[in-house]
Amino acid sequence: MTRVYNFSAGPATLPEPVLLQAQAELLDWKGLGASIVEISHRSAEFIEVAAAAEADLRTLLGVPHDHAVLFLSGGATTQQALLALNFAAPGQAVDYVVTGHWGKTAIRQAAPYVDVHVAADTESTGFRSIPPRAGWKLSPGAAYVHITANETIHGVEYAETPDVAGLPLFADFSSSIAARPLDISKYGVIYAGAQKNLGPVGVAVVIIRRDLLERSGQPRADIFDYRSHAARDSMLNTPPTWNWYLAGLVFKWMLAEGGVEEFGRRNATKTRMVYAAIDGSDGFYRNHVELAARSRMNIPFFLKDEDMTARFVAESRAGGLLGLKGHKAVGGIRASLYNAMPVHGAQALVDFMADFQQRNG
Amino acid sequence: MTRVYNFSAGPATLPEPVLLQAQAELLDWKGLGASIVEISHRSAEFIEVAAAAEADLRTLLGVPHDHAVLFLSGGATTQQALLALNFAAPGQAVDYVVTGHWGKTAIRQAAPYVDVHVAADTESTGFRSIPPRAGWKLSPGAAYVHITANETIHGVEYAETPDVAGLPLFADFSSSIAARPLDISKYGVIYAGAQKNLGPVGVAVVIIRRDLLERSGQPRADIFDYRSHAARDSMLNTPPTWNWYLAGLVFKWMLAEGGVEEFGRRNATKTRMVYAAIDGSDGFYRNHVELAARSRMNIPFFLKDEDMTARFVAESRAGGLLGLKGHKAVGGIRASLYNAMPVHGAQALVDFMADFQQRNG
Repeated sequence: MTRVYNFSAGPATLPEPVLLQAQAELLDWKGLGASIVEISHRSAEFIEVAAAAEADLRTLLGVPHDHAVLFLSGGATTQQALLALNFAAPGQAVDYVVTGHWGKTAIRQAAPYVDVHVAADTESTGFRSIPPRAGWKLSPGAAYVHITANETIHGVEYAETPDVAGLPLFADFSSSIAARPLDISKYGVIYAGAQKNLGPVGVAVVIIRRDLLERSGQPRADIFDYRSHAARDSMLNTPPTWNWYLAGLVFKWMLAEGGVEEFGRRNATKTRMVYAAIDGSDGFYRNHVELAARSRMNIPFFLKDEDMTARFVAESRAGGLLGLKGHKAVGGIRASLYNAMPVHGAQALVDFMADFQQRNG
Repeated sequence: MTRVYNFSAGPATLPEPVLLQAQAELLDWKGLGASIVEISHRSAEFIEVAAAAEADLRTLLGVPHDHAVLFLSGGATTQQALLALNFAAPGQAVDYVVTGHWGKTAIRQAAPYVDVHVAADTESTGFRSIPPRAGWKLSPGAAYVHITANETIHGVEYAETPDVAGLPLFADFSSSIAARPLDISKYGVIYAGAQKNLGPVGVAVVIIRRDLLERSGQPRADIFDYRSHAARDSMLNTPPTWNWYLAGLVFKWMLAEGGVEEFGRRNATKTRMVYAAIDGSDGFYRNHVELAARSRMNIPFFLKDEDMTARFVAESRAGGLLGLKGHKAVGGIRASLYNAMPVHGAQALVDFMADFQQRNG
């Protein structure tokens, strides 16, 4: 078996030691004679796995005590609807800053329930920047301000946490959670589908400042109520146990590797290498995002000659570099450099880029 | 490694050949050099897996062409809220027949959105029967009639599909789907969390008569809209790919074993053995459900001397029979006999029951 370098945007590459452990344990959980996939979420065995995953994630991210951590089924999109249902009154104003595809998706999920105000939007300039904070039009009395910390498709990322004048800041961190140190106390809600930086698809992590759970929100089913999930330790219904377990293995792996400080360094190294390859290609490769807003996780780029894109994808794949085709919404190439992508994977990519340019430049 | 007989109610036992295949493929999907967990849901590889799973489930269950099949994240409880949102107008009457815990849960999820009428309810007699159809009070103009085909906790199951006078019949089949042949054309919606009879936790199957998708329902986020999921082949957002894949392996296994006819025979055999052991125990073991309503999947029973329950659970576990502790809502013992439980597993249980009685009777 030869494992390739997998640059997929999500579901994405997982650490090989995690997959090996999951493989070894798949039929027999610590001598129980059954798989972790096969036992009750209310068994002592699974409750221990679940609690360890939460404790490890709290350590990894430095989650403050006054924030709850939930592990829920459904991805980030589901949370985008639940944010409005749980934290805003019917028709209340909410502010969204739109810096790419996922900010628009977030608005679409909230719109049936609240009065969405777009505080800032960079679509007219092609989603290439973070709009300066001074220009944001925040609404007095808004229930929250929503940002997309990293836009997976457009490759645009906030360098710093914006100051939102005391309003609760809600952020989609699906593609950049745990990528570097972050002061979570500045956020009201952080949510992330796990399938990029935290592990497998099929489970979402939601980190909520507990005082927000006292908001009455709007009429909703119990299963859509974050308070109910928090009161039952994310076991209001049967949770996606295997996915939760696998995420827990990824947390342990990240802690053992040195935590978010170490991954922040590795990610900076990987990103610097790939952007340098693009910027030093004399225009053969191009990335359109403003320097200060460039993503440290997802790097979309384009070939000077667009007709070469399909060949770049096919040849890179043949060379052991998987998942480099850009999202259909923007085309081109996209390299996702999540925590589980090693530095030598980024090196293999830039080597291929140089070789491809030499043969085709 | 010794695998035990696992009687858990869900998450539940999986076929060993399925786990072995998943284990073998976990790090390298058919020579791709990456796991099926690590690749895009929009990749050709995963789309093939997803399409095969749907085709196999259609074959297995005999799903009519005019029913859509969705694979969604979240379990049955989420669907219970979505049914009301998608298929009833705000405040419209809906009819629920309550035969146990899960029927009550279904009502709780729908209640914020619709005018819930309880057409029949057996709680006052301890959830031991299916209420005779003649006594159901259906509402003229109800959006649908909801039943729980099998109550996993109370062990109460419909022997036949009830006639609901032309109203759309919606049914929670979480714990009895694919357990025996069923005429799906009689149902408007069938839904099931996969973690009992269909495979792993973390994915739900929803089978919807397509004309119902034309109902406007009520204001809701895109992610809560079955039409949106159907239009995108259950890939409106990132689906729980590994869970979907594993369910697909279970479908192939069920087809190879002979399909629902064969499992209907095996399940009848297993159930007959365990009920015979209870009924022939001279009152040492007792099941309270009326004969005609006894579940063929989940058998709750009680020891004459309730103080022996904990010992029964501990000794059976030590003897390689896992997950026999009853649900906390009813206590006692519960044996779940899903498709993946072999007949010799049921035999091991009745052997243990006889031995335990002999030693303690």
